[in-house]
Amino acid sequence: MVHAPNRPPAGAPPVRINLYSDTQTRPTPAMKEAMVRAEVGDEQHGDDPTVHELCDRMAALMGKEAAVYLPSGTMCNVIAILTHCSKGDEVIAHETSHILHSEGGTHAALTGVQIMPMKGPRGMFTADDVRAAIRPKTRYAPPQRLLEVEQTANIGGGAVWPLAQLNEVAAVAHEQGWSTHMDGARLMNACVAAGIAPKDMVANFDSVWLDFTKGLGAPLGAVLCGSEEFIGRAWRWKQRLGGSMRQAGICAAACNHALDHHVDRLAEDHANAKALARGLRQIPGVVVEEPDTNLVFFDIKGAGMSVEQLQAKLQMRGIAVSGLGGRVRACTHLDVTAPMIEEAVTEIRAALAAA
Amino acid sequence: MVHAPNRPPAGAPPVRINLYSDTQTRPTPAMKEAMVRAEVGDEQHGDDPTVHELCDRMAALMGKEAAVYLPSGTMCNVIAILTHCSKGDEVIAHETSHILHSEGGTHAALTGVQIMPMKGPRGMFTADDVRAAIRPKTRYAPPQRLLEVEQTANIGGGAVWPLAQLNEVAAVAHEQGWSTHMDGARLMNACVAAGIAPKDMVANFDSVWLDFTKGLGAPLGAVLCGSEEFIGRAWRWKQRLGGSMRQAGICAAACNHALDHHVDRLAEDHANAKALARGLRQIPGVVVEEPDTNLVFFDIKGAGMSVEQLQAKLQMRGIAVSGLGGRVRACTHLDVTAPMIEEAVTEIRAALAAA
Amino acid sequence: MVHAPNRPPAGAPPVRINLYSDTQTRPTPAMKEAMVRAEVGDEQHGDDPTVHELCDRMAALMGKEAAVYLPSGTMCNVIAILTHCSKGDEVIAHETSHILHSEGGTHAALTGVQIMPMKGPRGMFTADDVRAAIRPKTRYAPPQRLLEVEQTANIGGGAVWPLAQLNEVAAVAHEQGWSTHMDGARLMNACVAAGIAPKDMVANFDSVWLDFTKGLGAPLGAVLCGSEEFIGRAWRWKQRLGGSMRQAGICAAACNHALDHHVDRLAEDHANAKALARGLRQIPGVVVEEPDTNLVFFDIKGAGMSVEQLQAKLQMRGIAVSGLGGRVRACTHLDVTAPMIEEAVTEIRAALAAA
Amino acid sequence: MVHAPNRPPAGAPPVRINLYSDTQTRPTPAMKEAMVRAEVGDEQHGDDPTVHELCDRMAALMGKEAAVYLPSGTMCNVIAILTHCSKGDEVIAHETSHILHSEGGTHAALTGVQIMPMKGPRGMFTADDVRAAIRPKTRYAPPQRLLEVEQTANIGGGAVWPLAQLNEVAAVAHEQGWSTHMDGARLMNACVAAGIAPKDMVANFDSVWLDFTKGLGAPLGAVLCGSEEFIGRAWRWKQRLGGSMRQAGICAAACNHALDHHVDRLAEDHANAKALARGLRQIPGVVVEEPDTNLVFFDIKGAGMSVEQLQAKLQMRGIAVSGLGGRVRACTHLDVTAPMIEEAVTEIRAALAAA
Repeated sequence: MVHAPNRPPAGAPPVRINLYSDTQTRPTPAMKEAMVRAEVGDEQHGDDPTVHELCDRMAALMGKEAAVYLPSGTMCNVIAILTHCSKGDEVIAHETSHILHSEGGTHAALTGVQIMPMKGPRGMFTADDVRAAIRPKTRYAPPQRLLEVEQTANIGGGAVWPLAQLNEVAAVAHEQGWSTHMDGARLMNACVAAGIAPKDMVANFDSVWLDFTKGLGAPLGAVLCGSEEFIGRAWRWKQRLGGSMRQAGICAAACNHALDHHVDRLAEDHANAKALARGLRQIPGVVVEEPDTNLVFFDIKGAGMSVEQLQAKLQMRGIAVSGLGGRVRACTHLDVTAPMIEEAVTEIRAALAAA
Repeated sequence: MVHAPNRPPAGAPPVRINLYSDTQTRPTPAMKEAMVRAEVGDEQHGDDPTVHELCDRMAALMGKEAAVYLPSGTMCNVIAILTHCSKGDEVIAHETSHILHSEGGTHAALTGVQIMPMKGPRGMFTADDVRAAIRPKTRYAPPQRLLEVEQTANIGGGAVWPLAQLNEVAAVAHEQGWSTHMDGARLMNACVAAGIAPKDMVANFDSVWLDFTKGLGAPLGAVLCGSEEFIGRAWRWKQRLGGSMRQAGICAAACNHALDHHVDRLAEDHANAKALARGLRQIPGVVVEEPDTNLVFFDIKGAGMSVEQLQAKLQMRGIAVSGLGGRVRACTHLDVTAPMIEEAVTEIRAALAAA
Repeated sequence: MVHAPNRPPAGAPPVRINLYSDTQTRPTPAMKEAMVRAEVGDEQHGDDPTVHELCDRMAALMGKEAAVYLPSGTMCNVIAILTHCSKGDEVIAHETSHILHSEGGTHAALTGVQIMPMKGPRGMFTADDVRAAIRPKTRYAPPQRLLEVEQTANIGGGAVWPLAQLNEVAAVAHEQGWSTHMDGARLMNACVAAGIAPKDMVANFDSVWLDFTKGLGAPLGAVLCGSEEFIGRAWRWKQRLGGSMRQAGICAAACNHALDHHVDRLAEDHANAKALARGLRQIPGVVVEEPDTNLVFFDIKGAGMSVEQLQAKLQMRGIAVSGLGGRVRACTHLDVTAPMIEEAVTEIRAALAAA
Repeated sequence: MVHAPNRPPAGAPPVRINLYSDTQTRPTPAMKEAMVRAEVGDEQHGDDPTVHELCDRMAALMGKEAAVYLPSGTMCNVIAILTHCSKGDEVIAHETSHILHSEGGTHAALTGVQIMPMKGPRGMFTADDVRAAIRPKTRYAPPQRLLEVEQTANIGGGAVWPLAQLNEVAAVAHEQGWSTHMDGARLMNACVAAGIAPKDMVANFDSVWLDFTKGLGAPLGAVLCGSEEFIGRAWRWKQRLGGSMRQAGICAAACNHALDHHVDRLAEDHANAKALARGLRQIPGVVVEEPDTNLVFFDIKGAGMSVEQLQAKLQMRGIAVSGLGGRVRACTHLDVTAPMIEEAVTEIRAALAAA
C-alpha cells in the first residue's frame, strides 16, 4: 500500500507555523472574491474567457507564443515530455530533479523516456557537463532529445541558476538538436531573487511552466508555455490525460489575481528565509545552507537527531517542516510572517536541545 | 494542427439556448457561495476536509469502500483502466463508447490496452454478446481483463441500461475473472430516470465514476469509486498523471452542493428532453429517437440538410446543438427551461424549412 | 497460464499429412546445404554478407530502397507500426486482421496504437469504406496514421486483394497523409496466384514484408522493406526489441535459396488447395469457400460436428488441420502432395461420417 | 540517421586478429554439422525437439524450473524486465550496465521502467549500496521492483562478481520484496573463471540468461531461465515481440553443441587475456586493468593517442579492437589463439609508437 505523505502524529495540535511547503498556502479572501466574480465557460472547448486571459498573460510574461492551463505542475512536466519526446528517447536532467524522484516514475511509464542523471552542486550542471554527456549516435545508445532544468532547484536548496549558466547549457542542447524545457515550479522566486524578467530568464528554453499553487498562493493550476505548434500538440495530451476541464475560469481567476498581487511579495519570503537561516545557524550542531530563495535546508546530524525525530517533535509544537534527501527543509510563503520565523527558531532550538 | 471543438461562425450572436452539452452549465450563485465558504487543505497530501467529505459521500452513495476526486471524467477512465489492466490486455466495450472515440486514443497510448468493440442497439450489448466475444486462452490472443459500460450510453442516445442487463453482463465478466468498470459520466441521470438507487445500479461494477460537470452543474471534477485497494493504486496514477491538486476543496464544495441540490432536478431535464422530442417529431423529415434521459438525438437527412448546416443556421439564431455520429444531439440541463424548449423547436423548424 | 497452441491428444500417431499450417514446413536437404555453405558475419554490426544479399534481393523484388532481416513476421508488423506511428495514433485495418487477433495485443502494448476494425467480405475493404472511416480532426478523436492490409488475407480465406482495390485504398490513405503497410506473410502466394510481380503489387505501400517460414519453407525469418529512411529507423527498433542477430547469414541463406527455388512452385500448392476444395465439396454438410491460394476454409456445422471434434478425430488418423474463426482451415505447402490431398479428403469424409 | 557500428576505414585489409568482440566468432565445422543433423519442428507451437532439449539442459544447468529460447540476449533482458515489472516501476542496476547504455532506451520505451544507476568499482555494487538506495514508500517515488546485475560486468572490465556479494545484494532485494535478474551474457566466463557451478552462481536470482553468441560461439540465440510461472508469462512477451520462431532447432543445435564443447575451453580465452594484459603492460603509456575473464581494457591516454586513432591504425594492420567508455577493449574468444595475442601486442606497440 502506498502511503499518503507525512501525516501528523496522533495528538498533535493544529499546525500554526507551516514551513512544510509553499503548496499549502490557502487562498486569501481577495483571491476568493476574484474567483467568484470570474466569467467562465467550457475550458475544454476553448470557451472560458478567464482561462484565455491567464494564458495570454502568461505567454506574454514568458515571451512565448502560446500557453495552456493545466491542473498541476506535474502534469506540465508530463505533457511537456510527452510533447517533446518519443518513446526510447533520453532526457538530460540533474540527478536531484523532481522528474526523477517525485513524479512516481511517470516519464518512463507514460512517455517511455530514460533520464540521464547529471551531477553538480546545488541541483545545477554546466555546459561542460552537458558536453561530456553527449552519447555517440549509434543504434545502441538511446537518442538524446531534451535538456531539462529546474529553476529554482528544489533539492538543490532552492538555488537560482545564474542566467549565463542557463543560456550556456541551453546552447549546447540546441547545438545537438535537442529541445530545452524548464520546470519553473518556483520560477517567479528565481526571477524576483535575481531581479531578472521571466522572459529573459527563459529566453533559451523551448518550453517552461509556472506553478500557481506554491508561493503564488492559488488553490489549483499551472501554466505551460511554448510555441504555437508545441502548445497545439500539448493540448492533445491534455485531452488524453484528462487535464481538460470545464468552468476552470473560477480557478484561473485566482492565478490572474496572484500575478497581480503575489509576485513582488515573494521578496518577503526570501527575506524570511534568510532570517531563518541566520537564526538556525546559531544552534549548535546545525549546518545551514545559505538560501537563494524561500527554501532553507539544514543538516542536523551534528545535533544528534534524525530528520524524522525533529519533524515529530516540532509537530507536537504546532510547527511543520519537511525532510528531503536526509536534510530538513523549511519553506517560507505568504502564510508565514517574520514573527513566526523567530518563534520557529526558538522552537527548533528547544526541540534539538532535547536530543 | 488539431482543431478546438466546434466554434461559432463569425457574426453569430451569443448563445441564448445552449443545447450543445450539459458540460456547459455555469455554477449557480448558491454553488459559488458554497465554494467560497469551503474549508480547504493540501488535497495531494490528504489534507483537504472538503475533498474528504465529497469522497466519503460518494463512496457511501455508490456502496464502495473508497473514492478519489479527479479533475475530469476522462481522467477517471484513464486511471481506472491503468489500475485494472496491464499493457497488452483487452477491454470489452461498446463500439460507440467514449473510450474508443472521444479520448484521443489514450487507452492504447497510456495503458497499452486494445478495446474489443461490441455491437448492439443503443450503446448496449447483452450477456450472450459477451459470451461470444470470449477469446481462447492462447499466446496469440490478447488477454481479456475488463468489461466497460457507459451508463447512460451517450452515442446510444442517452439510453439507460436496464439493471438486469447490467448485472448479466457483469456476471459473465466476473465468471471470466475480468473486472468491471462503469463510465458513469451521466449515471445520476440513469438512476433518476430508472428510479434505482446508485448503489444498486452499480453493485456489480468494481469501479464506477460520476462526473459533476455535466447535469450536476459543478465547474470541475469527477469522483472515481472502488475498493480500498483499487483506490490506493489509483492514487499512484493520479500522482503520475498530475491529477493531484492542492486546495481542491474549493471545487469539491461545488460537487457537495450538487449532490444536495442538483440530483432530483435531473427529472426536469428528462421532461424537457421528452418535450423536445415530441416537438421535433412534428417537423417533416425529422426522425427522433425517444429519449430515456437528457439527450435527444435526431436525424435530419429526410429534411435535406446536413448536421453542419443546421448547426450553423441555429448558431446564427443563438441556439447551440451538437453533431454526433451523423445525427444532431440536443442536450437538456439546468440552464435550459421549458419555454426555451418550445422556442428551440420553433427555431429548428424554421431553420429546416429553409433547406 | 497461457496455453501453447493446439497439441495432439495423447496416443495420437505422428502427423503424416500436415495441413495445419505452412509454417510447419521443414527445410529441404538442398536448403540445409545452402545454409552450411553460407558466408557469415556479425549481422548486428552490418557485417553479414549473406544477410546483405538477402536484403538487397528483397529490396529489388519489392521495388523499395532498403530492407531489413528480422526473426519473424510478427516482428515485422511490430517494427513497422512502431516506425510509422506514435502512441495514441490509430491504424485502419480489417476486423479479421492478424494484428488484431493473433499478436497478443502487442500494438497497443508496445506502440500504443488503437486499431479501427474495418468490415468487408473476405478480409478486404474498399476505398469507400476507408473514406467512411475518416475521423474528424479534433482533439477527441485519435489521429489516424496508417492503413494496413494483409495480402493474402488469412482469416479472409487466403483471399487475394485485387490490385486495383489495393491501389484505391492506398490512394485514400495517402490523400489523408497516412502511411500504408502491407502484411505480406503470404504475399508471394498472392503474386503467383494473380500473376502480378511483387513490385507492382506493393507499389503503393510504404512498407511491406514477406515471411520466409510459410510456403517458402525456410526455418526462420522475414524481411521488411521500405524507404532508406524508414528502414534506418526500423533498425533502431530491431535493436531495442532484441531482433538484431549475430551470424544470421546461416538462416538468411535458406531464404535466398527459397527465393531461387520455392516461389514458382507455390502454384502447385494452389492447385492442391483447389483439388482439396473440390473433394470436400462432395462431402454432405460441408460448405467450402473457393480458395484463391493455399488456404482452404470449410464449415462443418451442417455435418453435425464441431471444429475441435473434427481436429481431434483427424489427429488420431495422423492428419492435422487448424480451426480459425469457427471454421476448419486446411493449408497446402511444400510438404503436401497431390496424393495426400486425396487421402485427406477420404479421411475427412470418414471422420465426419462418424458424427 | 543512426549509424551502424564501427566500420573499417576504406582500404583496410580483412581482419586477421579479431579482438573486437566475442560476438563475432564464426560457427565451427563441427557446430554446423550438428545444425544440419538437428531434428526440428514448429518452435512457436512448442514442437521443436532440439529447442526443447536446449531449454531442458539450460533449466537444469541453472537450477531453474523452466527456460525459453530467444533470438538474442537483448531480448532476454527486454522480456525479463517486461515480465518482472510494470510501467512506472524502478530497476536497480549499475550505472555502467548494458540495459542503461546499449539497448537503445528500450526498457523505458517498452516496459516503462526507470533505472536507478548504482555506483561502485568494476561494474559492481554492495549490499550497503543497495540499502542506501531504498526509496520511501510514498506516492511520489517510483516503486522499486527489480535488482539487476551483469555477470561478468562488461564495462566493469569483464569483472566477476564474487558469489558472496551476489548473494548479499540479492538478499537485500528479496527483503524488500523485489525480484532479482542476472544478465548472464558472459555468465559461463564467470563460472569457469571462479570455478563455481552455474546453478550455485545464480541460486539467488529469480531469472538469468546466457548468451550463446559470445564466447560459446553459436550463431544465434540466448536462453532465459526462471520459474515455470515466470517463463509462462515470458512466452507471452516472446510472442508479442516477434521472438517466436519456426524451425529454430537448427540454431538451437549449435547451442547444444556449444554446451558440450565450448564451455571448458573458455579457460583458454582467459589465459590469452592475461597474456595480452601482461604484454600490453610493457608498453610505455599504457595502463592495463587486470582481466578476470576474456575482456582486457586499457587506457592509452598516457601514450598520446585517442582510442579512435588507435582503432584506425590497427584496422590498417588487420587487427580489430573496440572502444568503450574512453578505453580500448580487446576481447579474446575461440577464434583468437596464443600466437595471435603475441602478434597483437607487437602491433599495438608499433601503432602507439607512431603517436
